[in-house]
Amino acid sequence: MLTLASLSLRLGVSGCRGGRRSIATVVSGNKTSRLVRERLALEVERMRSRFSGFRPALVVLQVGDRDDSNLYISSKLKAAAQIGIDARHVRLPSSATQDEVLQNILSVNENPFVHGLIVQLPLDSVNPMDSELITNAVSPDKDVDGLSCINAGKLSRGDLKNCFIPCTPNGCMELIRQTGVSVAGKHAVVIGRSKIVGAPMHDLLLWNHATVTSCHSKTTDLPEQVGRADILVVGAGRAEMVRGDWVKEGAVVIDCGINHVPDETKASGKRVVGDVHYASANERAGFITPVPGGVGPMTVAMLMENTVLSAQRFLLKNPAGR
Amino acid sequence: MLTLASLSLRLGVSGCRGGRRSIATVVSGNKTSRLVRERLALEVERMRSRFSGFRPALVVLQVGDRDDSNLYISSKLKAAAQIGIDARHVRLPSSATQDEVLQNILSVNENPFVHGLIVQLPLDSVNPMDSELITNAVSPDKDVDGLSCINAGKLSRGDLKNCFIPCTPNGCMELIRQTGVSVAGKHAVVIGRSKIVGAPMHDLLLWNHATVTSCHSKTTDLPEQVGRADILVVGAGRAEMVRGDWVKEGAVVIDCGINHVPDETKASGKRVVGDVHYASANERAGFITPVPGGVGPMTVAMLMENTVLSAQRFLLKNPAGR
Repeated sequence: MLTLASLSLRLGVSGCRGGRRSIATVVSGNKTSRLVRERLALEVERMRSRFSGFRPALVVLQVGDRDDSNLYISSKLKAAAQIGIDARHVRLPSSATQDEVLQNILSVNENPFVHGLIVQLPLDSVNPMDSELITNAVSPDKDVDGLSCINAGKLSRGDLKNCFIPCTPNGCMELIRQTGVSVAGKHAVVIGRSKIVGAPMHDLLLWNHATVTSCHSKTTDLPEQVGRADILVVGAGRAEMVRGDWVKEGAVVIDCGINHVPDETKASGKRVVGDVHYASANERAGFITPVPGGVGPMTVAMLMENTVLSAQRFLLKNPAGR
Repeated sequence: MLTLASLSLRLGVSGCRGGRRSIATVVSGNKTSRLVRERLALEVERMRSRFSGFRPALVVLQVGDRDDSNLYISSKLKAAAQIGIDARHVRLPSSATQDEVLQNILSVNENPFVHGLIVQLPLDSVNPMDSELITNAVSPDKDVDGLSCINAGKLSRGDLKNCFIPCTPNGCMELIRQTGVSVAGKHAVVIGRSKIVGAPMHDLLLWNHATVTSCHSKTTDLPEQVGRADILVVGAGRAEMVRGDWVKEGAVVIDCGINHVPDETKASGKRVVGDVHYASANERAGFITPVPGGVGPMTVAMLMENTVLSAQRFLLKNPAGR
């Protein structure tokens, strides 16, 4: 854990503030996600030895063959393999009907040897698909993406111990924990209100007892709102929209953005940036996540954590391990 | 509607601000709830004539015999009767078991002639009761209190057209509409995060496009947070905790509190006050709800609205009216 070291560093840096510019401590998602995955691998090993060969199992259901989905799925399968999770990739052709997708979900729901099920979105099908209906067909007990209405309802009303928390906001919380900054009583600002980032992030910060402000595209005074944030989480989907001079001195800045912008100096002609203007925010924030290497790697790690958690809950109900 | 008249009044009053103290426009829940009930009565009449005698039907399930519950139920039954809703009171003895309560809920869930079901809380039973389990046993299609996880999940993620909104925050929104102040782009502050008031109020303001700050018992700078609110909704359950000098000049102040405080000048020895110190807030706010006669009467009116809405949805699916 980098907490103690980074805190010492922060204290040192803080002493210079006012006199000259200081630089934020970088909160590494690469490092933190590796720590999470190592912890999970130990936990899975413990389960295997205690429950004679038992392994947490995850099904990733894909419809069609999108390149980006293939890439995401491949990184999930790789992380699972490293941890010892039995991950299975079920791919339906883009000609699959909604009923076939639902039938596959129901079959996994009923399979006691599978503890987690995610449906890779967006669905790449030639047939009409109601992704809301499909997301909610996943059993709440196996919904390790935490995207069903029931899990959202529990999270939004504070029943955190009894639900699955969506992976990206859960990863953000883990990164905030790494800073050593306590959340309770702080003023947190969330930009964005999507189902997978902003809305559950609000809930998670609120039920960790922050005072939380939800901002979005209709917010009229975003720089002022950002300027009051002790903890800022940005999931807006707009490249470098948060400027450094908006950021409160010493704030924790968590950037969920992944945006491609033109860059002639790169062989690919583009580079990846976050929703925060990193260079300028780095001079104001106390802690900041980089892009890439910040929130991104945490999302997969937290999917693994939810899968292990689901397996643990299964074992609590089925002490024989089957 | 008082919108135009009150806006003219506000404009007049605003002109005096700075020179001398002004007084907020009172947003009457008594008057607004009457308007809602009159509108619903017309709608029920229209249903009856169009669908040969069809009436929206509501079941109020009570366990035990608490005085306060009896009072609330009686006001719900009275409002339903006035509107033409067929409301039935099912009372189980305090000796009822949880299974009996669940059995009653399932039976109403399956009854196509009932469109709304509420379980009066708290449950007054000698047996252990899991009120979370019981609340979630109500079919989401009949959950006119809007308290099940599924309805909370939909509301919190912005699917407002496809859920039931809890009655008290829904009533607050109706009162805010009465002021003529638009919500989109405003800074709203909600004090409290309960399942029936604060948490759904946050969601409702957010998805009506306000920038929303959620405050609660762990908030460390409540006066400053309140001072930034164009729209303030208080559901804290603490008598007169919000002082007038915290309130932003011209704000809309909605007070959900119902607190009994000692008052020797009253025959009863007590009086009812809200969570806002009315006399001082009245001198700063643009619009304010009184207690009693503000949010209180709206809650029952919005329960009736949800019941009529549920019946309308039923008729959409069953055009024959049965």
